[in-house]
Amino acid sequence: MIFMGIDPGLNKTGVGIVYADIGKVEYIAHRLIKTKASDPLPFRLGALISGVVELILEYKPDMGAVEDIFHSVNAKSALLLGQARGALIAAMIAHDIPVKEFTALQIKKAVTGYGKAEKEQVKKLVELQLNIVVKGGMPLDVTDALACALCLAYNETRSIVI
Amino acid sequence: MIFMGIDPGLNKTGVGIVYADIGKVEYIAHRLIKTKASDPLPFRLGALISGVVELILEYKPDMGAVEDIFHSVNAKSALLLGQARGALIAAMIAHDIPVKEFTALQIKKAVTGYGKAEKEQVKKLVELQLNIVVKGGMPLDVTDALACALCLAYNETRSIVI
Repeated sequence: MIFMGIDPGLNKTGVGIVYADIGKVEYIAHRLIKTKASDPLPFRLGALISGVVELILEYKPDMGAVEDIFHSVNAKSALLLGQARGALIAAMIAHDIPVKEFTALQIKKAVTGYGKAEKEQVKKLVELQLNIVVKGGMPLDVTDALACALCLAYNETRSIVI
Repeated sequence: MIFMGIDPGLNKTGVGIVYADIGKVEYIAHRLIKTKASDPLPFRLGALISGVVELILEYKPDMGAVEDIFHSVNAKSALLLGQARGALIAAMIAHDIPVKEFTALQIKKAVTGYGKAEKEQVKKLVELQLNIVVKGGMPLDVTDALACALCLAYNETRSIVI
């Protein structure tokens, strides 16, 4: 099965796609979608959606996941983040992709075995588990998205890599 | 031209559709979409999207509008409202409907001539301008959505009803 993980953000959204079967995970693709703060909000949401839909059409994921968010710095940033998140979930639902939510704790635990792992540790283990060798590593928004995809994959296939 | 206005909310979303040409506005349709707080968020967003997409496919609006929101009670409710708003904007964009945003002040001014009008006054003038006669009137979420559609319509057709 093919799993898509999204780390939503209005400025930058990370998307990661993995293939997984019992005891097996493989990296398929990733994308970092950026939007310009000077563009109108509907345009920015449109850019996020287009970027994700392109990946959906190309890789046809069976399921998707986003990190569950409970709080934010303040109401203004929560509103912006919420809109990006809602639009991205909508894009998956519109393509009949079931969407699951995982808490940061669940994602970190699934990938590193420790619910309070640091971002850098998550990044290293994601790259390790998916055999990703990139000089300097991938951007954190992308490794977070791949971690989300891996968490979903492990939950669905019950495979254990580490 | 046909204009769609949306008053987004995760619990209740109001949608209003009007036809407008220079000096002329007509009520076409409305819907109040409700979701259950006990359902998972992606399911609730899916319900909002489905409700709006049904109206889009039936009435084929040329343009859409949502009220611009700058602040919210707190970060938690901002996040929920943001996701509903983002998903609904995404649904319109996915159907190639250009989306505009208007502030509450712009909407109230367009419909009542006064930027700080009360909700009840907006409701009365919306029903008056669209010849809506319903015992007890329509729900406020619907009249707010219709007010948003009217604001867009007046802006695009430059018609003046009152």
